[in-house]
Amino acid sequence: MRLSQYFMPTRKETPAEAQVVSHRLMLRAGMIHQASAGIYNWLPLGLRVMKKIEEIVRQEQVLAGAQEILMPTIQSADLWRESGRYDEYGAEMLRIKDRHQRDMLYGPTNEEQITDIFRHSIKSYRDLPKNLFQIQWKFRDEIRPRFGVMRGREFLMKDNYSFDIDEVAGRHSYNAMFVAYLRTFARLGLKAIPMAADAGPIGGDLSHEFIVLAETGESEVHCHKDFLDFDGLAEPADYAANLQPIVDHWTSLYAATDDKHDPDACPLNEDELLSGRGIEVGHIFFFGTKYSESMGAYVQDPEGNQVPVQMGSYGIGVSRLVGAVIEASHDQAGIIWPEAVAPFKLGILNLRVEDQATTAAAEDFYKKARAAGLEVLFDDRPERAGAKFAEMDLIGLPWQVAIGPRGIKAGTIEIKNRATGQREEVSAEAALDLLTA
Amino acid sequence: MRLSQYFMPTRKETPAEAQVVSHRLMLRAGMIHQASAGIYNWLPLGLRVMKKIEEIVRQEQVLAGAQEILMPTIQSADLWRESGRYDEYGAEMLRIKDRHQRDMLYGPTNEEQITDIFRHSIKSYRDLPKNLFQIQWKFRDEIRPRFGVMRGREFLMKDNYSFDIDEVAGRHSYNAMFVAYLRTFARLGLKAIPMAADAGPIGGDLSHEFIVLAETGESEVHCHKDFLDFDGLAEPADYAANLQPIVDHWTSLYAATDDKHDPDACPLNEDELLSGRGIEVGHIFFFGTKYSESMGAYVQDPEGNQVPVQMGSYGIGVSRLVGAVIEASHDQAGIIWPEAVAPFKLGILNLRVEDQATTAAAEDFYKKARAAGLEVLFDDRPERAGAKFAEMDLIGLPWQVAIGPRGIKAGTIEIKNRATGQREEVSAEAALDLLTA
Repeated sequence: MRLSQYFMPTRKETPAEAQVVSHRLMLRAGMIHQASAGIYNWLPLGLRVMKKIEEIVRQEQVLAGAQEILMPTIQSADLWRESGRYDEYGAEMLRIKDRHQRDMLYGPTNEEQITDIFRHSIKSYRDLPKNLFQIQWKFRDEIRPRFGVMRGREFLMKDNYSFDIDEVAGRHSYNAMFVAYLRTFARLGLKAIPMAADAGPIGGDLSHEFIVLAETGESEVHCHKDFLDFDGLAEPADYAANLQPIVDHWTSLYAATDDKHDPDACPLNEDELLSGRGIEVGHIFFFGTKYSESMGAYVQDPEGNQVPVQMGSYGIGVSRLVGAVIEASHDQAGIIWPEAVAPFKLGILNLRVEDQATTAAAEDFYKKARAAGLEVLFDDRPERAGAKFAEMDLIGLPWQVAIGPRGIKAGTIEIKNRATGQREEVSAEAALDLLTA
Repeated sequence: MRLSQYFMPTRKETPAEAQVVSHRLMLRAGMIHQASAGIYNWLPLGLRVMKKIEEIVRQEQVLAGAQEILMPTIQSADLWRESGRYDEYGAEMLRIKDRHQRDMLYGPTNEEQITDIFRHSIKSYRDLPKNLFQIQWKFRDEIRPRFGVMRGREFLMKDNYSFDIDEVAGRHSYNAMFVAYLRTFARLGLKAIPMAADAGPIGGDLSHEFIVLAETGESEVHCHKDFLDFDGLAEPADYAANLQPIVDHWTSLYAATDDKHDPDACPLNEDELLSGRGIEVGHIFFFGTKYSESMGAYVQDPEGNQVPVQMGSYGIGVSRLVGAVIEASHDQAGIIWPEAVAPFKLGILNLRVEDQATTAAAEDFYKKARAAGLEVLFDDRPERAGAKFAEMDLIGLPWQVAIGPRGIKAGTIEIKNRATGQREEVSAEAALDLLTA
């Protein structure tokens, strides 16, 4: 993509409205544009990152055996009356009347909707287990939306729902998602710690939040400091196997959100306890028969009895993760994207557009990089070299290749790694070899 | 994917609530499940088709030079007050009050939202032209939603918006979308005829609807019968070239929606005129400065003057197309998917699960088909052969491979083409060669 044609409205000034670094950098890099309080437009650069995160989340769901569906954003209030949550949910639910004065709502979560699909479709233990996921927009009418996409009102979420014949099978489904989440966050380059959590309005008594430690996190969390040395899951798990050992390892040390943390009962001494702020990037729940009993989702078991299906639900904040990755990976100059979610792998800078030899070399490198299958953003604009370097650092592509008159004479171009800052003068061929290795 | 594990709740009975064949077949094939009036859940089989259509639409947008963004579903009413459409739009707009009693709405279209993004981001002719598209859910509160996903309330739409410095450039952008739409529908296996249309609430005086002729279409249309012999665009166009000749060819014959058709002024004689019903699958508009003037989207032209940007907007009903393709391609037994949008290319039927040799051969073929990169649905359930054939015809995969005891003895399997009904007894190797050719 040529930057001369790309819609990337960057800003030089620091946006006054943004309190946290990810919000500031997303605005400055032209990734988002605020539509109204807590509601954002995703511009091309931001959407590319969100789609990469979405695809990693999707792949790990499918590997864990979940099947993708898509539920509507607008739901009937009647379903929520069946579960009893229509009155319970509070002001965060966006309540709507349609033209026939029917009560509708913008789904903040989908337990009722999925239970309705299930009870109309599945009647026998033979069709279990099932695990259905979607990646869909949600709305929660936060009283004070802030921190940009980290605490927006309209947000993209992967949510899924497991259905099992009994508690043992249900617990296996819970473990599968626990492990899939560890794997997902590891692929995103994030260190996420599972913490015992309060189930809140979803319900049930088994629940974990996955927390990325960050000073700008919205909540206080407490955990054993040895978690910092835990390695993320480097390989996909075998989901048919017993997953309890992996779950046991990751819950072997103390970790709790503020709701669950009792300073007097905490087993850790001062040297072991790490208290700080964290960003919730995932939350999983096992609530058994809460919705299946109230909404009548029964299946026949092998003995011919009608039993309520055992359910869990599992959420990852996809749009929020864009902010969380930036909180975890940036410096003074801007964003530092992990390769897995970078909007482009490589930025090419033509340092002097008016110099024919430089432009010929830059165009040639752009052509070759694309032919090699690289995702490239090519700064071909007639701007100062200094401004181009600053903007490339701001948007944080993993690699930069700078092509200018001085290097052309020496037969070299400069390649820079954004994360390490390391620069090298190499031939164009050597740079391409390095980038495609 | 094994059908024993797949969530595909098919129905044998004909759903009483469905008036048109696509709605009936989508319900029977387990592609969708109604959530409330005109609002649908997309189950795995239906979502796969919708995603294939979405991806073809996306690819053709990108080829035509459009860049993808994503706007929120919930918009502020203030923007619509600026353009004057908040009061004009009528009861189809879903109006919402948030917890602070601010007027919001669920976007039925996005001219105001995109104009707001533009006016905050682009100030100079140097950054034009721009063409921004999104694929996002819309809501139109139809008084009587019907025909399933063909006339739903919540629906997925590709909408995009072009920005140009003057009318000549704006007309080129309009032509580019005209051509991209011809190409998109041709890839979907649809014969879509561009017809002069009324611009309605979007505005402007240049507008075409793209109509697929079908008895179940929601509107009356009129065109020259020679359109039936027009060939769709077989190749992508060169969007940098003059596109007027292609547009002229496709508008050389009379074609008009009922709004625009005047029987007394129609230039066609009875032999030439084809009047019938049609499904609107796309609609394009050039409205010049309607929104840029009212909302203040001005850019500096080369002479230093501030001029309102010239705009057009362009929509394709992505979720509606799932129904439209079925209306155009089905028979008594069920759906007949064109290969480009089929949820799976191939269905494998194990005709006798309890026979070891048959099951071994079917499992082996499944393994080889997946290894060859084919998208396969494998009916490995312990059901009657007759029921399996009927269900495979219903869901309409382009190819079926049936493996049973009789063929095993002869060293053959049966391969059937769903569209032609042609069956052949061949070796497993020959079948794989045919499927991967």
